[in-house]
Amino acid sequence: MPSTAPQRADLGARFHHVRRFTEQLCRPLCPEDYMLQSMPDASPAKWHLAHTTWFFETFALGPLGVAPLDPAYGYLFNSYYNAVGERHDRKSRGLLSRPTLEEVYRYRAQVDERLTQKLTTLSEARFDELAPVIELGIQHEQQHQELLLTDIKHAFAQNPLRPSYRPPGRIVGHPPAAPVGQRGTPPPSSFIFYEEGMSEIGWAGAGFAFDNEGPRHRVYQAAFALGHRLVTSGEYLTFMLEGGYQRPELWLSDGWSAAREHGWEAPLYWEKRDGRFQSLTLDGLRDIDPAEPVCHVSYYEADAYARFAGARLPTEVEWEIAATKLPLEGNFVESGALHPVAVAKATTPTAARAPEEASLARAPQQLFGDVWEWTGSAYSPYPRYRPVSGALGEYNGKFMCNQLVLRGGSCISSVSHLRASYRNFFPPQARWQFSGFRLARDESAR
Amino acid sequence: MPSTAPQRADLGARFHHVRRFTEQLCRPLCPEDYMLQSMPDASPAKWHLAHTTWFFETFALGPLGVAPLDPAYGYLFNSYYNAVGERHDRKSRGLLSRPTLEEVYRYRAQVDERLTQKLTTLSEARFDELAPVIELGIQHEQQHQELLLTDIKHAFAQNPLRPSYRPPGRIVGHPPAAPVGQRGTPPPSSFIFYEEGMSEIGWAGAGFAFDNEGPRHRVYQAAFALGHRLVTSGEYLTFMLEGGYQRPELWLSDGWSAAREHGWEAPLYWEKRDGRFQSLTLDGLRDIDPAEPVCHVSYYEADAYARFAGARLPTEVEWEIAATKLPLEGNFVESGALHPVAVAKATTPTAARAPEEASLARAPQQLFGDVWEWTGSAYSPYPRYRPVSGALGEYNGKFMCNQLVLRGGSCISSVSHLRASYRNFFPPQARWQFSGFRLARDESAR
Amino acid sequence: MPSTAPQRADLGARFHHVRRFTEQLCRPLCPEDYMLQSMPDASPAKWHLAHTTWFFETFALGPLGVAPLDPAYGYLFNSYYNAVGERHDRKSRGLLSRPTLEEVYRYRAQVDERLTQKLTTLSEARFDELAPVIELGIQHEQQHQELLLTDIKHAFAQNPLRPSYRPPGRIVGHPPAAPVGQRGTPPPSSFIFYEEGMSEIGWAGAGFAFDNEGPRHRVYQAAFALGHRLVTSGEYLTFMLEGGYQRPELWLSDGWSAAREHGWEAPLYWEKRDGRFQSLTLDGLRDIDPAEPVCHVSYYEADAYARFAGARLPTEVEWEIAATKLPLEGNFVESGALHPVAVAKATTPTAARAPEEASLARAPQQLFGDVWEWTGSAYSPYPRYRPVSGALGEYNGKFMCNQLVLRGGSCISSVSHLRASYRNFFPPQARWQFSGFRLARDESAR
Amino acid sequence: MPSTAPQRADLGARFHHVRRFTEQLCRPLCPEDYMLQSMPDASPAKWHLAHTTWFFETFALGPLGVAPLDPAYGYLFNSYYNAVGERHDRKSRGLLSRPTLEEVYRYRAQVDERLTQKLTTLSEARFDELAPVIELGIQHEQQHQELLLTDIKHAFAQNPLRPSYRPPGRIVGHPPAAPVGQRGTPPPSSFIFYEEGMSEIGWAGAGFAFDNEGPRHRVYQAAFALGHRLVTSGEYLTFMLEGGYQRPELWLSDGWSAAREHGWEAPLYWEKRDGRFQSLTLDGLRDIDPAEPVCHVSYYEADAYARFAGARLPTEVEWEIAATKLPLEGNFVESGALHPVAVAKATTPTAARAPEEASLARAPQQLFGDVWEWTGSAYSPYPRYRPVSGALGEYNGKFMCNQLVLRGGSCISSVSHLRASYRNFFPPQARWQFSGFRLARDESAR
Repeated sequence: MPSTAPQRADLGARFHHVRRFTEQLCRPLCPEDYMLQSMPDASPAKWHLAHTTWFFETFALGPLGVAPLDPAYGYLFNSYYNAVGERHDRKSRGLLSRPTLEEVYRYRAQVDERLTQKLTTLSEARFDELAPVIELGIQHEQQHQELLLTDIKHAFAQNPLRPSYRPPGRIVGHPPAAPVGQRGTPPPSSFIFYEEGMSEIGWAGAGFAFDNEGPRHRVYQAAFALGHRLVTSGEYLTFMLEGGYQRPELWLSDGWSAAREHGWEAPLYWEKRDGRFQSLTLDGLRDIDPAEPVCHVSYYEADAYARFAGARLPTEVEWEIAATKLPLEGNFVESGALHPVAVAKATTPTAARAPEEASLARAPQQLFGDVWEWTGSAYSPYPRYRPVSGALGEYNGKFMCNQLVLRGGSCISSVSHLRASYRNFFPPQARWQFSGFRLARDESAR
Repeated sequence: MPSTAPQRADLGARFHHVRRFTEQLCRPLCPEDYMLQSMPDASPAKWHLAHTTWFFETFALGPLGVAPLDPAYGYLFNSYYNAVGERHDRKSRGLLSRPTLEEVYRYRAQVDERLTQKLTTLSEARFDELAPVIELGIQHEQQHQELLLTDIKHAFAQNPLRPSYRPPGRIVGHPPAAPVGQRGTPPPSSFIFYEEGMSEIGWAGAGFAFDNEGPRHRVYQAAFALGHRLVTSGEYLTFMLEGGYQRPELWLSDGWSAAREHGWEAPLYWEKRDGRFQSLTLDGLRDIDPAEPVCHVSYYEADAYARFAGARLPTEVEWEIAATKLPLEGNFVESGALHPVAVAKATTPTAARAPEEASLARAPQQLFGDVWEWTGSAYSPYPRYRPVSGALGEYNGKFMCNQLVLRGGSCISSVSHLRASYRNFFPPQARWQFSGFRLARDESAR
Repeated sequence: MPSTAPQRADLGARFHHVRRFTEQLCRPLCPEDYMLQSMPDASPAKWHLAHTTWFFETFALGPLGVAPLDPAYGYLFNSYYNAVGERHDRKSRGLLSRPTLEEVYRYRAQVDERLTQKLTTLSEARFDELAPVIELGIQHEQQHQELLLTDIKHAFAQNPLRPSYRPPGRIVGHPPAAPVGQRGTPPPSSFIFYEEGMSEIGWAGAGFAFDNEGPRHRVYQAAFALGHRLVTSGEYLTFMLEGGYQRPELWLSDGWSAAREHGWEAPLYWEKRDGRFQSLTLDGLRDIDPAEPVCHVSYYEADAYARFAGARLPTEVEWEIAATKLPLEGNFVESGALHPVAVAKATTPTAARAPEEASLARAPQQLFGDVWEWTGSAYSPYPRYRPVSGALGEYNGKFMCNQLVLRGGSCISSVSHLRASYRNFFPPQARWQFSGFRLARDESAR
Repeated sequence: MPSTAPQRADLGARFHHVRRFTEQLCRPLCPEDYMLQSMPDASPAKWHLAHTTWFFETFALGPLGVAPLDPAYGYLFNSYYNAVGERHDRKSRGLLSRPTLEEVYRYRAQVDERLTQKLTTLSEARFDELAPVIELGIQHEQQHQELLLTDIKHAFAQNPLRPSYRPPGRIVGHPPAAPVGQRGTPPPSSFIFYEEGMSEIGWAGAGFAFDNEGPRHRVYQAAFALGHRLVTSGEYLTFMLEGGYQRPELWLSDGWSAAREHGWEAPLYWEKRDGRFQSLTLDGLRDIDPAEPVCHVSYYEADAYARFAGARLPTEVEWEIAATKLPLEGNFVESGALHPVAVAKATTPTAARAPEEASLARAPQQLFGDVWEWTGSAYSPYPRYRPVSGALGEYNGKFMCNQLVLRGGSCISSVSHLRASYRNFFPPQARWQFSGFRLARDESAR
């Protein structure tokens, strides 16, 4: 019995769990739903199922000499890895009715079987080489689980019937979320102060992290203040009612152009029906809950709101300084809500608490989960960053331009997928992710 | 028992037959195939199934006071009838995963049941009103049967796997077609002469015809000659090999631009593999048969070939003069070939025949079936044309601009759908229909 | 002295006159105006000046062995003649600041001098060959004189300053036009009847005609009625006020799409200021005169108006039957109005006239001049049409698709350029030409 | 006499000088050249002349109560200041043939006269308010002098005649540049090392700086190395010859897409003629000088080259640390070269120098002038950045997204316009500026 047996068992179990969870997320879909590609940035569910499988087949089984099950799949299901060959036109993924759904599920099963078998039988040396790739494949599939949900949400929003992803009240493997709109008003927004000084940010610990989270490095940070919770839909509605979308002085120039060009007048998925705003959620159309974090806004809208509020967005350094010591708690996919929820109301007045409690109470809330938080930081390499070698070096590094960093994970992220050092990134005009934001402010040293 | 009982029975039988045939054509499809919309001009099979049903529900059941089964369907499945209300964005039909396929088939069954029941029970007066609409609905569904096949063919051609519509050799309800490429060379092309004089063209008989086929009217026609058969793939290949796609002097200006812009170098669906041309058919990729009529060419290509051959395309008047007395025979959808086939070889030398036979032998071949024939005639209203009143007046009349007339039906047309006076029409750049052509020439009066 | 001396003198005089008139038309322009290209369909004035010169240099001097003055000009100033070589990108003509205006005028002068000299010295045989080409060049330059004015009008309309082509009241070589808006109301529209029968149309006489005007040929024409005058701005305004632009049932499908896409709500150059419609003319912004012919409408708008009025557009055969015996009189460029004018008021009541006079009074008015009249006829070759051989065969024939025929000439056409058989052609969406229309109706044989 | 008299005189003299220099730059242009707008990012020379004038009229004369000379000019010549009103469509500036060139020059003269007069007569308090705005207007006009040259260069490159901006050898107000291609090979590229540590960057001194250059702030910088000179055309040619444009692994994902989409295979303005590369300069087409800095490359190309060379682009912090103590010397517009030139060859062997000299010799070369240097830094606000209040706050701040910082100025920058803290910015795909780059490397602390 190999000395890595426990690691193998753990990796195998997590591999199995992640693969099943993808399929579980697909369960509410009818076969036609699997085909939907509503924009080039999104992919059909069937493609996500196949691509994540291709990833394991190519990067984990390939180096072990296992021939691909179907040579055509390398062309069809490669996303963007130039180093492993030509590939299908990204915006035409919705035209791949073949291979059929059945064939794709069979492909998944066969690759799973092969990988599971290899995992127990390969040599120690080979396992050491392969384990990081399988780990990466697991993390990769978790990312696609999020995309699978954001993409199906976007596709359903194009259908005049406004279908619900799951039957009302029914949740994928979890108890139903509390009814919306009954959570009362959130505590008024306040700011938490951080002293100036040298810090270290970036991943340095054991365990998995993407290459773009490192190397850990020193930064000098001036004093700043961070909003203690996310900006809410109610607050955002005030911005809208006070002409936020009509006042160019609040906007970046590119943002103003984007808003004009696309006719933005509210967050994505908001629509006015019978005089009030509703939003398409994965549970169908619902009234806006003013207490819940605003979601599906672009960087431009987040930035304009911040200017409206006399504040700014935090940098990713500021965010990480605040997040680094906090427990990884929040509203993740495991809650089953599949939607951001209002911050918990403080039940006891802060004044009544002991100092340490007050200090605890002053930790920022909702840093993890609910919505990915736009930061004001362009997605650039950390000092001395080196992408991993080979095709997998294309995973993150080549996207370090024209994107902004988002932090903290969302209500459709798996908790096991997140870290304080995690750097997500999207172009500033992207709105179909579960993206929201919190405010920050400059502070004089006190 | 109403005196129209036989007509009712006949209409009901034909209604039933046509409705079943549409579904029979869908049988080889997997659920995902039903979703494919590969360009705005094409529609998903599921949409065709629903739209043809909506047509009966709206125009036949509606006036009888039957409420629609689902009020949303009027929005989703109206094609272009402004008079019956707003409708869904044409190019987004491929995003309608809901209603599901099952719901659409149920919709079909329910409308069929309602219509069948009404057909036997309504009053004589009502029947007289309704019969023409049901007849139109039948003809309309036959048109969509063709579109269903041309659209799925186009969609499959976008898939790098080049799927076949039906398993090799298997045909929808018909014996297999003779193997391709073994039909020998067709007789050399020759011309048949027609004297100058006054003629009448347009529909005038009993039975159904579209409004655009009338009124029947007098025309003066100069002497002309018509190619005795369709231009073949082999002949078209010669055009290609002699630089047809590189010689602007052969092309209309708009045609030359279209060919440059889209990179046309061969008919649609032709691709060079291993040094020889293959074509994607509904039975998958096959070698080009030089004897079969060339197909999937635009008007521009047909026109350029004709100039190359020192000839021209016939006008629709010329075509109808030639076709009007010929029997309605040819390669239609009923043959099961789903592809144009080579003209039958003359088995007896013409010289050995009696004069009348020789004259018969000189009748043009392939006028009906195989491919829709591009004519040089712009699609314009006949003198004194009046569209039918009401929403159904939008059926044909509003398209009388920027299109060319095609005549004769194709290998995927139902024989019961065709007539010598039938005017099909497509824009000059369209290539995804089964469109080919024959030549014509001016002749001095002899 | 050659026996063709009188012809040479006449041709030389007309050549000289046409060349000077082009330059006269440019006189009100400042150097920057010469650069304007406001859309790909239009060309800068400088380009028109050079292209018409290139035409003579290439097609008249070229065959005489005269080398081009600047070899680069063939590339820059060829419009669309594939047979004489590659050419500059049509939509980038506005970027040719060099050659300078001065160089282009020098180019004109040098080619004029060369041609004038050749015209007197070449042999009889050469003259016979060349005279038709020079004649074509003259006609060609007259066409570009129209384009020069329509293109500068379109370009000025893009300038928020709405400049006038010429100072108020000042006219190019002619007395000022009568003030607008004081011409009273035109006689109510009536129809003139034409019997059914065989006719001949197309050019057959001596003198110049374009190849597309022939061959003269027989046609059978059913009885019809033709509007006795052009449709007026006032009548068109009624169409607008009664929702003409909002009623899809009045429009061709492509027309409705074009109107939606481009936001058409009035003829081109009309704009509402202070609650009333004004129109940009070559004399600047002016109030609409309800009595003047409506102008700058597309075929789609003309067609929709005709349907609104319970009529249709005439075919080109009908138009030519009506026009063929009428004198070539009307509002041409020589009037100096550079704008369509209201039909002259009948001064004596028709009833008081002798029968012959009544008949004369019943001749249609405004058939020539004022506006090019859209017909319902697609621009197709006449039976037995053959383009002239060589590069000049590209002049007309290759455009015989996707265009409609317009007849009669406009207020910016030279009278010497027009004929009853003249076939102008533009795509149905074109609005920047001086295009209007009259109505027609079907009539039963009486 | 006001106590600010010397400042007034100085400001007035610099105002006068800058205004005249703009006009001097226009002297080689013919009137049609002034109209050229070859892409939306570029503007016609006439527009630059008018816009810079409008800037002074609006922001300097406006607050003094001076009414605009022509109210329409505010609409036509506002570039992007939302706070001062609506404006003309940016991409249609090339259609403004009116106001004429003469009118624009008159506009310049009148505004100059008004401003000059005000400058001497206004109160002390008013002068204190206004002087910074006039200073900004001067700096603004210097920026437009650069754009005027880059835009005319781009426009001329669209003309197949490839015109030269100025007659060969002739320079605007300066002695001719040394002939190209005779400067020998530059010293091999080497790196200069910088220790890690805390620094301050950003503007803090007296005199003018744009708001985006501040506030001055502390940064921690790891050790790094900076290329001692710019990357040359010869080195870039090696990249091209070794397949740089065909190797996706060298490129950012967006860069690879841009290169494919636009067909980039060399820097902008390079073209292969007779087997060797030439480049369009402001003096016309010239052979590439391998020793001169490569120019007219996008950020993507600079980034790909750096990866090819095993290096990276410097950050703007690194660049400023290196530049901050160096004298402001280099090849600016005053040299008259209007093109980057090869680095001066070391005339004395470094070994022969005293240590201090060696150290001096080790200062990076070409930091100022020649080409704007792409840095790897996204254009973001400095910590605690606040735009100036009012409309002028739109000058820089609203562009802080989707752009990269460039440093150092170019061969067409005025030396009086530059500073070590100067932050220029362009989108990563921009190539029409005089943009090049130098390399940087990470270094371990020594």
